[in-house]
Amino acid sequence: MHYGNGKTTPCEDVLPNQISTCSDLNTTAFVDRMIRVENPDLIIFTGDNIYGFDATDAEKSLNSAFAPAIRSNLSWAAILGNHDQESTLSREGVMRHIVRMRHTLSQLNPPVSDAPDIDGFGNYNLQIRGVEASKFENKSALNLYLLDSGDYSTVSSIPGYGWIKPSQQFWFQQTSLKLKNAYMKKPQPQKDSAPGLAYFHIPLPEFASFDSTNFTGVKQEGISSPSINSGFFTTMLEAGDVKAVFTGHDHVNDFCGVLSGINLCYAGGFGYHAYGKAGWDRRARVVLATLEKTEKKSWGAVKSIRTWKRLDDQHLTTIDSQVLWTKTSSGRRRKRIQSGL
Amino acid sequence: MHYGNGKTTPCEDVLPNQISTCSDLNTTAFVDRMIRVENPDLIIFTGDNIYGFDATDAEKSLNSAFAPAIRSNLSWAAILGNHDQESTLSREGVMRHIVRMRHTLSQLNPPVSDAPDIDGFGNYNLQIRGVEASKFENKSALNLYLLDSGDYSTVSSIPGYGWIKPSQQFWFQQTSLKLKNAYMKKPQPQKDSAPGLAYFHIPLPEFASFDSTNFTGVKQEGISSPSINSGFFTTMLEAGDVKAVFTGHDHVNDFCGVLSGINLCYAGGFGYHAYGKAGWDRRARVVLATLEKTEKKSWGAVKSIRTWKRLDDQHLTTIDSQVLWTKTSSGRRRKRIQSGL
Repeated sequence: MHYGNGKTTPCEDVLPNQISTCSDLNTTAFVDRMIRVENPDLIIFTGDNIYGFDATDAEKSLNSAFAPAIRSNLSWAAILGNHDQESTLSREGVMRHIVRMRHTLSQLNPPVSDAPDIDGFGNYNLQIRGVEASKFENKSALNLYLLDSGDYSTVSSIPGYGWIKPSQQFWFQQTSLKLKNAYMKKPQPQKDSAPGLAYFHIPLPEFASFDSTNFTGVKQEGISSPSINSGFFTTMLEAGDVKAVFTGHDHVNDFCGVLSGINLCYAGGFGYHAYGKAGWDRRARVVLATLEKTEKKSWGAVKSIRTWKRLDDQHLTTIDSQVLWTKTSSGRRRKRIQSGL
Repeated sequence: MHYGNGKTTPCEDVLPNQISTCSDLNTTAFVDRMIRVENPDLIIFTGDNIYGFDATDAEKSLNSAFAPAIRSNLSWAAILGNHDQESTLSREGVMRHIVRMRHTLSQLNPPVSDAPDIDGFGNYNLQIRGVEASKFENKSALNLYLLDSGDYSTVSSIPGYGWIKPSQQFWFQQTSLKLKNAYMKKPQPQKDSAPGLAYFHIPLPEFASFDSTNFTGVKQEGISSPSINSGFFTTMLEAGDVKAVFTGHDHVNDFCGVLSGINLCYAGGFGYHAYGKAGWDRRARVVLATLEKTEKKSWGAVKSIRTWKRLDDQHLTTIDSQVLWTKTSSGRRRKRIQSGL
């Protein structure tokens, strides 16, 4: 969202006829419109929620940025980008403020007993249970992993952006394993993990594996990943449950490409006080998980995961609809043999 | 060493006039010669200690392979390669056998309290204290990290060799931090970590960053790293203390190249029952750490780390002598700005 101070904060990269009337309030209006048109069960904000350099009061800016989510009474969750801490609160301060807000499922970090030394703020797992009164009502049928991909490198020999650290990867791996074991137990023991989705701000180096022949969407700028590879793609491949990753950071890339069975997707540039491309609409990604119907007219596991984007144009046009994953009879997607970076 | 069954196990890739008399015993003789000529304080074996496919009894093969080290009464340590488990013992079994042998400093894994869920066998840290009666006598002045880089990928979508996992990286990172904190405390508080050296079998993807213009030694085959990057190079850069990495695995590469301040070095192909290059001598790498002399004629911190290789020729010829690291007044090597893979 790149929120600043509200109506006094101007838009960037909009058409000349939009400049005079455009502000952070356009970002707010777009959140409202997305909520009305999609009526989602959960809203996820993928970082750079506020653009700290221009927000004079971090708390006020955060309150304004998330106000549409809060007043919708829907559940919402947020993670940190690389700009959230540039105003009057530290990264920890921003995340501590967020977790106290209404209707949020955001968490500061896992319980200390699970991950005593985890790096960053806003690393957590959300478990989405099956339908009430179905055999999946006490199982997590869809697992969300939300992680703090940091801001900038603090290692003098490595320039550029931050990355997901061993402590976070170890927590992710252990959490994924626990969830898998639980999912494969009674009732309705499953053959494999429930599908997982990962959300963090900064794209992985593996996002650079694609070109227009093998992705859906557009790539209009370089991949601003860290300058080194910290191995999280490998860790996800090994865990085996994550079917798609959603990141922010690059505002004018909005593609999804699949590498070794994991979809690497941009969420799409959303905020108006953020670089973008004049005439190229701000956009947001929607993710839909559909459940299996069981024989006894009840609901089972997740059957498929689809995605599309909505443009902030007159009709909130839907584009780039695609299937990210479907459950096969063995519970696994067909294997793809392809090597990464 | 690629040890098999001893004198009945033939050599590979030696000259025609060597074939009839060459066996594992040539490997044994080379260990003996290296010990005599260098009289080292510690011998490190970097995996594929035995070539399991051809060893009919793993215990016997291990006993023979390490016999020269044991009878020398020197300290020695070993880690696993990708072939050690191909005989009658599992990876855990091989490592459990090794740690019970005489004079070894090898360990199965860190204490469970430090790393309850670590992957692999033979992940451990050796601390080399300063000179007795000096101010460094209770400080670790040189830290060795020995890790199990696995054998093969167990993830169906990733072909090829194994890799260092998040659990191992997290343990390494925490160990490095503890050692740094201790080193910066009294007596003789230091400004930065003591230098560290890392040993594991399979080279990292970053070993492919060099060509003959920026390494010392030779590259006569591809870098057989895992097909994906699990981030250990990044983790070492962030920890900041490791100055050099030594691996085995590729028998006819023997170079050292420096990337972002970390030397990536091959140990050099040693064993005779192993692929190699006829007429290109088997070889071993020596590492020498030199201490500072303090004002009061005592000994201080590590001042420099040098390396060279010895060829198994008539004169045990020394080649490719080079300085890997020197302590600067601030305790840090001059920063190099260079981005990795």
